[in-house]
Amino acid sequence: MTDQNATDQKNANSLWGGRFEAGPSAIMEEINASIGFDKRLYAQDIQGSKAHCAMLVKQNIIPAEDGEKITNGLDQILQEIESGQFKFSSALEDIHMNVESRLRDLIGPAAGRLHTARSRNDQVATDFKLWVRDVALADLEAGLKGLQEALITQAETHAETIMPGFTHLQAAQPVTFGHHLLAYVEMFGRDRGRVADCRTRVNENPLGSAALAGTPYPIDRHMTASALGFDRPTANSLDAVSDRDFALEYLNAASIAAMHLSRLAEEMVIWCSAQFRFIGMSDKFSTGSSIMPQKRNPDAAELIRSKIGRIVGCYNSLMLSMKGLPLAYSKDMQEDKEPVFEAHDHLGLCVAAMTGMVADMKVFADNMRAAAGAGYTTATDLADWLVAELGMPFRDAHHVVGATVKLAESKGCDLDQLPLEDLQGIEPKITNAVYDVLTVEASVAARQSFGGTAPVRVKESVKAAKERFMK
Amino acid sequence: MTDQNATDQKNANSLWGGRFEAGPSAIMEEINASIGFDKRLYAQDIQGSKAHCAMLVKQNIIPAEDGEKITNGLDQILQEIESGQFKFSSALEDIHMNVESRLRDLIGPAAGRLHTARSRNDQVATDFKLWVRDVALADLEAGLKGLQEALITQAETHAETIMPGFTHLQAAQPVTFGHHLLAYVEMFGRDRGRVADCRTRVNENPLGSAALAGTPYPIDRHMTASALGFDRPTANSLDAVSDRDFALEYLNAASIAAMHLSRLAEEMVIWCSAQFRFIGMSDKFSTGSSIMPQKRNPDAAELIRSKIGRIVGCYNSLMLSMKGLPLAYSKDMQEDKEPVFEAHDHLGLCVAAMTGMVADMKVFADNMRAAAGAGYTTATDLADWLVAELGMPFRDAHHVVGATVKLAESKGCDLDQLPLEDLQGIEPKITNAVYDVLTVEASVAARQSFGGTAPVRVKESVKAAKERFMK
Amino acid sequence: MTDQNATDQKNANSLWGGRFEAGPSAIMEEINASIGFDKRLYAQDIQGSKAHCAMLVKQNIIPAEDGEKITNGLDQILQEIESGQFKFSSALEDIHMNVESRLRDLIGPAAGRLHTARSRNDQVATDFKLWVRDVALADLEAGLKGLQEALITQAETHAETIMPGFTHLQAAQPVTFGHHLLAYVEMFGRDRGRVADCRTRVNENPLGSAALAGTPYPIDRHMTASALGFDRPTANSLDAVSDRDFALEYLNAASIAAMHLSRLAEEMVIWCSAQFRFIGMSDKFSTGSSIMPQKRNPDAAELIRSKIGRIVGCYNSLMLSMKGLPLAYSKDMQEDKEPVFEAHDHLGLCVAAMTGMVADMKVFADNMRAAAGAGYTTATDLADWLVAELGMPFRDAHHVVGATVKLAESKGCDLDQLPLEDLQGIEPKITNAVYDVLTVEASVAARQSFGGTAPVRVKESVKAAKERFMK
Amino acid sequence: MTDQNATDQKNANSLWGGRFEAGPSAIMEEINASIGFDKRLYAQDIQGSKAHCAMLVKQNIIPAEDGEKITNGLDQILQEIESGQFKFSSALEDIHMNVESRLRDLIGPAAGRLHTARSRNDQVATDFKLWVRDVALADLEAGLKGLQEALITQAETHAETIMPGFTHLQAAQPVTFGHHLLAYVEMFGRDRGRVADCRTRVNENPLGSAALAGTPYPIDRHMTASALGFDRPTANSLDAVSDRDFALEYLNAASIAAMHLSRLAEEMVIWCSAQFRFIGMSDKFSTGSSIMPQKRNPDAAELIRSKIGRIVGCYNSLMLSMKGLPLAYSKDMQEDKEPVFEAHDHLGLCVAAMTGMVADMKVFADNMRAAAGAGYTTATDLADWLVAELGMPFRDAHHVVGATVKLAESKGCDLDQLPLEDLQGIEPKITNAVYDVLTVEASVAARQSFGGTAPVRVKESVKAAKERFMK
Repeated sequence: MTDQNATDQKNANSLWGGRFEAGPSAIMEEINASIGFDKRLYAQDIQGSKAHCAMLVKQNIIPAEDGEKITNGLDQILQEIESGQFKFSSALEDIHMNVESRLRDLIGPAAGRLHTARSRNDQVATDFKLWVRDVALADLEAGLKGLQEALITQAETHAETIMPGFTHLQAAQPVTFGHHLLAYVEMFGRDRGRVADCRTRVNENPLGSAALAGTPYPIDRHMTASALGFDRPTANSLDAVSDRDFALEYLNAASIAAMHLSRLAEEMVIWCSAQFRFIGMSDKFSTGSSIMPQKRNPDAAELIRSKIGRIVGCYNSLMLSMKGLPLAYSKDMQEDKEPVFEAHDHLGLCVAAMTGMVADMKVFADNMRAAAGAGYTTATDLADWLVAELGMPFRDAHHVVGATVKLAESKGCDLDQLPLEDLQGIEPKITNAVYDVLTVEASVAARQSFGGTAPVRVKESVKAAKERFMK
Repeated sequence: MTDQNATDQKNANSLWGGRFEAGPSAIMEEINASIGFDKRLYAQDIQGSKAHCAMLVKQNIIPAEDGEKITNGLDQILQEIESGQFKFSSALEDIHMNVESRLRDLIGPAAGRLHTARSRNDQVATDFKLWVRDVALADLEAGLKGLQEALITQAETHAETIMPGFTHLQAAQPVTFGHHLLAYVEMFGRDRGRVADCRTRVNENPLGSAALAGTPYPIDRHMTASALGFDRPTANSLDAVSDRDFALEYLNAASIAAMHLSRLAEEMVIWCSAQFRFIGMSDKFSTGSSIMPQKRNPDAAELIRSKIGRIVGCYNSLMLSMKGLPLAYSKDMQEDKEPVFEAHDHLGLCVAAMTGMVADMKVFADNMRAAAGAGYTTATDLADWLVAELGMPFRDAHHVVGATVKLAESKGCDLDQLPLEDLQGIEPKITNAVYDVLTVEASVAARQSFGGTAPVRVKESVKAAKERFMK
Repeated sequence: MTDQNATDQKNANSLWGGRFEAGPSAIMEEINASIGFDKRLYAQDIQGSKAHCAMLVKQNIIPAEDGEKITNGLDQILQEIESGQFKFSSALEDIHMNVESRLRDLIGPAAGRLHTARSRNDQVATDFKLWVRDVALADLEAGLKGLQEALITQAETHAETIMPGFTHLQAAQPVTFGHHLLAYVEMFGRDRGRVADCRTRVNENPLGSAALAGTPYPIDRHMTASALGFDRPTANSLDAVSDRDFALEYLNAASIAAMHLSRLAEEMVIWCSAQFRFIGMSDKFSTGSSIMPQKRNPDAAELIRSKIGRIVGCYNSLMLSMKGLPLAYSKDMQEDKEPVFEAHDHLGLCVAAMTGMVADMKVFADNMRAAAGAGYTTATDLADWLVAELGMPFRDAHHVVGATVKLAESKGCDLDQLPLEDLQGIEPKITNAVYDVLTVEASVAARQSFGGTAPVRVKESVKAAKERFMK
Repeated sequence: MTDQNATDQKNANSLWGGRFEAGPSAIMEEINASIGFDKRLYAQDIQGSKAHCAMLVKQNIIPAEDGEKITNGLDQILQEIESGQFKFSSALEDIHMNVESRLRDLIGPAAGRLHTARSRNDQVATDFKLWVRDVALADLEAGLKGLQEALITQAETHAETIMPGFTHLQAAQPVTFGHHLLAYVEMFGRDRGRVADCRTRVNENPLGSAALAGTPYPIDRHMTASALGFDRPTANSLDAVSDRDFALEYLNAASIAAMHLSRLAEEMVIWCSAQFRFIGMSDKFSTGSSIMPQKRNPDAAELIRSKIGRIVGCYNSLMLSMKGLPLAYSKDMQEDKEPVFEAHDHLGLCVAAMTGMVADMKVFADNMRAAAGAGYTTATDLADWLVAELGMPFRDAHHVVGATVKLAESKGCDLDQLPLEDLQGIEPKITNAVYDVLTVEASVAARQSFGGTAPVRVKESVKAAKERFMK
């Protein structure tokens, strides 16, 4: 232990009170200290302390002049941290102790009044809620909005670009690329909805719950709630200091978003393969190989696909930590922050990289169009024609089409290359008019049902998406 | 394969169309068939089909008389299933095929018109959304409300019952048992909020998205949405058939609720121990031992504590299944239903059992009260008195209290049993008035801050909880 | 409750002893009873009881004639269960009580001697270990061996079939299809290793640990260990009744195997796409579409890819259940069996289906060969030639190749189609001999390092794999 | 980007070859670079490169003098890194590139020969396997052994200390504290078994598998295997570069060990509660409260209980990343290292802290003994006496005991305080001799079955444990 550490150690002990005869051992300091990660909460910690201090003054719990000293001291500390001059000490355990200890250095005994009517338990809950609200959720909301914008822009450009629509990775029916991209706009839109709901639920003020039972001081929790932008104080002090639902809820929203990203990333990897060649990644989002000079690997897409692991892992991490904890605060809950920080950092990177990839990808429309035409993708259109024009029940039409595809396969040709007599050999009532529906362009144009892939619908959807998501 | 199965098999093949020369092998039938579990969707499947049929008639896509036959046939099938007369066949794969095949038996070729302008892809999404909304979410909402009611009732009874408030399973400050129980009312209230948010998001109609691209028929998706109680049709057909967010979101809400239950269950197990004896379980929720006749084990609490595993396991299951799936529908998604069914069944059982336990538990108030008084739980009150009465900064008061506790420990007595001269030996300004705050009753009564544990606050909270949650 | 249930209920209560005044309520019966799933342990339960009984007789703890009655009674029960005549009752909670209750019906009071010197706690641990060993692990071992056999057979057939070797789903270097399949033989070989290790560790006998502390009866645990095929008795009775490591270890082995299956399944889905067309699935492992008659979907592969979710979900389920359980047995542990049963059933199905698919897949060697030649996959061979023949440092060679690929790309030709002067324009020392290494056949044949893709190595590997894995 | 970074960037691009026109963007660099974490592999990277270099020289693939330069250069780099002088650059992506780039600075073009006949794909697999083997597994093995030692030492001290043995957290039968601690020795012993098995399976050499297909150079993989302490080269190059089983297997072993730790930690938290007071934590492993001066919180135990979350989260993370990856190497696999590093760091801390706590805990034997006597914990002994002495079937004895306990409960006394006439009122054949088995000492002493709790057995077990685990 360095000398500085030894001093801090003594200082830390003295904050705990005079009862401990031996300091914690090195291993205990290492497992116990959270300052290594919770220093990320510094701004929220100071913000919360300032609000608490103003309330204490207002309620005549501490003298106004002490309040002023505290506020000025906290402002100075904020400035010291932001300018990189602040010395964090792990002997002082956490961000709260580090700030308070420095405050005592700066303003003397008045610093000791700040902790009136609160505890580290409600303090850390407040700090962490503020961070989740103002950093994690806010960043995710902004990032997803940016990603949607990139997707909508590409969707607008490709409202008429035809590609094969896949199910089971088999070409099923032709769709437009714009339509395909808008599917992801919907997904990320739901993600934003979950973020918003989480924000609403997180937004209750735990400050003033004290250690677990509330406090005898005549505090005004509505005042601090309002100062910190919370909708209201939490209703139960035991719950307030032991609730980490907001972190789990954020991690779930992050996990589902990461799942969506993994799907788009998977598609990009497949589309970039030589066999598909639907898109190409610019050099900005590809890397080369140390041994195979011709490679242009979609590394960013692969990393995004992979990072769902980290984020869902974080969800599991906190869920396991919380399982079976008796009320109220237990130290187990200290393991809440790192998973949230990790998920935030990884997901932020994924969203940013995906936004870049969507904006920069080169679309090989000719390859898409060619693939859309292969594989009898207009077979359903034939069935629909039989139903609509000949009044056949759908299931019977389905059988006729099966036989037609089989014939085309055996002849090695497309459906629209079968002569009329061949078609009539299967179903005599078929007429020449059928050829109008057997092109991919006709197929796509026909699907005008609400939410369907017809370019006219896609253009409307682009417009609607701008209205719904870009305000 | 039985004869019936062989016939069904042939029938199933004929539904797929004429192209497959060989039927799926036995192993394929076993891995592929979902009828073993998706028959739970029968009511939703028939409900969806009837809405679709009515719309097809209204839009003149199928003849009214066929529509009538279909509707009557579906009603009869519903009745057959509910009376246990329906024969499910795994050769017919899934609930959709089973129903449709029976419909053909009942009404002949007109049955083939029902599948016009839809696909199994949008059909299963519709069925499953209806089930999640009307069964999973509705049951969870109702169950949680009932559990809150049981908790509020007990909280009201025990608004003045004093117990030790724990942090780190160490007695920290006295609280009331009513206050403690209300903490769980808050948790389950947030759970209900998540359920409600999920319900809002699930409530978009996928029907009419067809296989993936929409359909050329002039369908009216708003009409089916309205008939099925959906708020609107989904905006993108590709997304509609490949979205399982609603299932994940339900599983997350269920997981967090299960986590809350695991905490209460853990407390019950601990409280039932001979060492605590805070509560006793009635015979209804205990079991004996096959070898130790004196045991009265809190089995139900233990099972509830354990079942979080099953539910979070289900969340992970679906998340892994969805990772990296390209659009649109892939068969992987068939693995969505069993985790949701399982979570629903296990969680439903847990909520019901917990509600029963909360209602039936015998509270040993004397034991709680005795434990609340041990362990210097009013030390904080002493500190608060020093701050409020002597104007000491909190941190200094904290040190005085540390020394006082140390002295009481060495004398083997409680704080309020220390003579005044002892107290003044540590801090000369202490007066006789201090003894007023050193009882647990005084401690509890003093914590009147909003959300605090004072009986007066708890009674208000009970009233507020009835307003907020029991309407 | 039916009359039979009411009687069973009374019977069950009487097994617990006379102390309980009220029977468990319906909800308690439902959450508590495990007979719904643990009846799968019937054979192991009877096997364990017979071994226990023989030991009790041998040690003169119970009379020989009672032992004979018990053994005969157990044999009859086994026969009743296997012939489907046995009536299971959920009021009798679990398989152990169901068997014991029936034994009492059959042989009267002597049945009561069987439970001497044991408890349900060691009994269930014994039953479950036997099941994991003799069913779960044995089935997985056999299934994986069969899958390896199918892979080796195909690998032998395709030892010279050339396909593109991919990294990042980009063609990197040509490999043989046999080599590719053998990679999975390695994976499943490691899986079998984990199964074998788990089997070794599971194979200690908990029987005789009684409730938790051992027993005063002069039992011989080595005798029951030997009778049940265990290597030795467990060393600590508290551990023996509360250990579920073996279940977790099985679930981990199952999860990693499922992960391997998910990779092969993903490849199959991609290879079946029209864009790749490397393989085709026979009708046995494909299904059609209800709306798109031309589809031939690789459903079985998709389901296998998806089922990793269920299995890893089971691992998480049990891990969460076990977290933080105090010693010794807690009812939480009853949630150990369903995850193991589920994982076993799903994984067994996956392994069987994959074995079928590997055996039946149609390999389109021409498509593989064509893809192997595209995309400058012999670029590394050029680099290696420059190093080996011209003595160039590898990194410099790498740069020369980069320039060459760029030139070929701009000319739209393959590397071996560039004229010598073009090559010499980049690196003057290149000679005509270089063209010998630029074909995919040469590239593959050259990779003769141990474990490399050259056909000569693949054939050796096939032979070695038969030696290592097929004995 | 700093100037140094810009230069490194250019350098990095030049390592990739001349084809990329634009460098990766800042976001790409951030998501793509692994140097931030994989620098932990520096020693393994250099060790692997030296072995590779020696082999290349031996096989005449590179000149001996170049080999010498390379070796010396690598030694110098190792020294630079260990002395903290090495400048890592994120533009150089990873540890391999950082080392190689520095090597080029130090020895010039000869550095370029080191990468002959290998790729980053086999290089990183080799480095990571070495790290898992020599750091992760070795540390875990050593840590668990130390923890077992601490447990065995305490078990020896407390071979005769009587405590209540719990099931369902209800006192069931008296056991010795030594016996209880030895249960954990068994658990950690199995953990070491899993570590050893993982070590065996990890110990195959991937080096020389090159990018994915092997190499045309006449390398000797057995030589590098031997130099690096591997048992043999991997059998299949495609598998070798895309296998991460060893990391998952380590993470599983770590997860199960963490589960065991969570159980012991939970017990410690409960035992430290005022209600139990079975043990006390020294100041070294407790902390105080900022607001409640009397608190002595078992923070270290709580943190250990919680950290299972992080470790199982890491398992899930990698499992999700690996799901469905096609062969061979994909960039997704880069997400393998951080979960392993994290799990290693957290678990190492937990094992160390737990070892310290076990050694330092103060055992309150009187409290344990008192609790062991309460709650009719010798009821089973009464039943066993009835069976052994009166020849009663166990199930009948069980009923007699049930009635006896009920009577004692109603009289508010212990079993051995019931007068003989009371006992005979329930079962007339009971004699005075029964009182000999009704003390906790007699109960414990009687349980001499193998693995049982009798002090004589516990002492034998301690001796056996030293033999089995401490060599």
